[in-house]
Amino acid sequence: MNRDADKAVRAVVLVSGGLDSATVLAMARNDGRECHGLSFRYGQRHDAELSAAAKLCAALGAVSHRTLTIDLAGLGGSALTDPDIPVPESSTEGIPVTYVPARNTMFLSLALGAAEILGATEIYIGVNALDYSGYPDCRPAYIEAFQTLANLATKAAVEGNPILIRAPLINLGKDEIIRRGLDLGVDYSQTVSCYQADARGAACGRCDSCRLRRAGFEAAGVADPTRYQH
Amino acid sequence: MNRDADKAVRAVVLVSGGLDSATVLAMARNDGRECHGLSFRYGQRHDAELSAAAKLCAALGAVSHRTLTIDLAGLGGSALTDPDIPVPESSTEGIPVTYVPARNTMFLSLALGAAEILGATEIYIGVNALDYSGYPDCRPAYIEAFQTLANLATKAAVEGNPILIRAPLINLGKDEIIRRGLDLGVDYSQTVSCYQADARGAACGRCDSCRLRRAGFEAAGVADPTRYQH
Repeated sequence: MNRDADKAVRAVVLVSGGLDSATVLAMARNDGRECHGLSFRYGQRHDAELSAAAKLCAALGAVSHRTLTIDLAGLGGSALTDPDIPVPESSTEGIPVTYVPARNTMFLSLALGAAEILGATEIYIGVNALDYSGYPDCRPAYIEAFQTLANLATKAAVEGNPILIRAPLINLGKDEIIRRGLDLGVDYSQTVSCYQADARGAACGRCDSCRLRRAGFEAAGVADPTRYQH
Repeated sequence: MNRDADKAVRAVVLVSGGLDSATVLAMARNDGRECHGLSFRYGQRHDAELSAAAKLCAALGAVSHRTLTIDLAGLGGSALTDPDIPVPESSTEGIPVTYVPARNTMFLSLALGAAEILGATEIYIGVNALDYSGYPDCRPAYIEAFQTLANLATKAAVEGNPILIRAPLINLGKDEIIRRGLDLGVDYSQTVSCYQADARGAACGRCDSCRLRRAGFEAAGVADPTRYQH
């Protein structure tokens, strides 16, 4: 019998392959959680981030990793899933075209189902409301509303064991996230943040996600390990 | 130009192939909605209800019908998706083993994404809190919490066009649902409610869903058109 494993709180960790979720996985491990990584193939332009997610789960000590497919991609509706909509390479007003309809709601809901089936009592998600692209489903009020829903939605909750949504990055700047991850041993060269990475995972350096990431490394005062295409 | 089509409010309707959702689809059509049917393959024991869903969408005038796959089934966790857990054939205390973890949360979240992509402003769902199996995600408070979440989750909502969750059966008895559907021309012989229907869609007559349905036809005082296995 492994007594530690028996005692560990089990958590589903949403792992995209990017910088934020890699940091969250390291934080969950540091919190002593038994981590089950969950990724989604939802029609992204590239698979490089899913390969990165699998590698990060192994490197950071998740006990399992699953990639689920959400087959709404054929419906289009976002620059991240529709090759006919270009990814913008400069800042825009309002919510950008890289917004994927209801993405975090779909991710959290499938994580809720997976958590209940796995007997996990926590879901970790790397949303961030400071250095982010302005997506509505990254805001604290959104996460609070999902928690309220989760408290009503599951048999586990009705029986007194609600599943807790943990968003430990929500109020951190990108530089703070990076420093925290480096302290916990995250190798950010393994992470892919770019909205239009190439097949090897090399970044464009120009999209919103690349710009936020690069500024984060600068503000943290550490070398940027990102592989760029140019 | 079809002026009516231009004016019609577009709605995503969750269609399981059962009695309740068929009635909801007929009600949405009666409300003048342009209906887009959405069904899920989530590891059900049988495909008969999905065949029924497709036929009902055609018969009741939906303009499209999609079946999405939720690939959590391999994780088990419910008598409806795990062949090793028997479907109970008598009433039980509490939430029964036919509960599927976070099912309506997953369904509504994927419907929210589909609705936003399709430009639909409403989602119809056939949940019912009277003659039901006691699932937590069928209660009015649950639907209200999902509406609160939806109001924060989408770009559409932030831009002033929140997607409305409509649950027109929530406070109706099964007999009232049946009478309403018959008024609207629903052919209930096409619907499959049974948790363990055979390949032809014939019902066991003994599971919770069969018992609620049979009692509904009796209370409505109309002939039960269900095809039973025995």
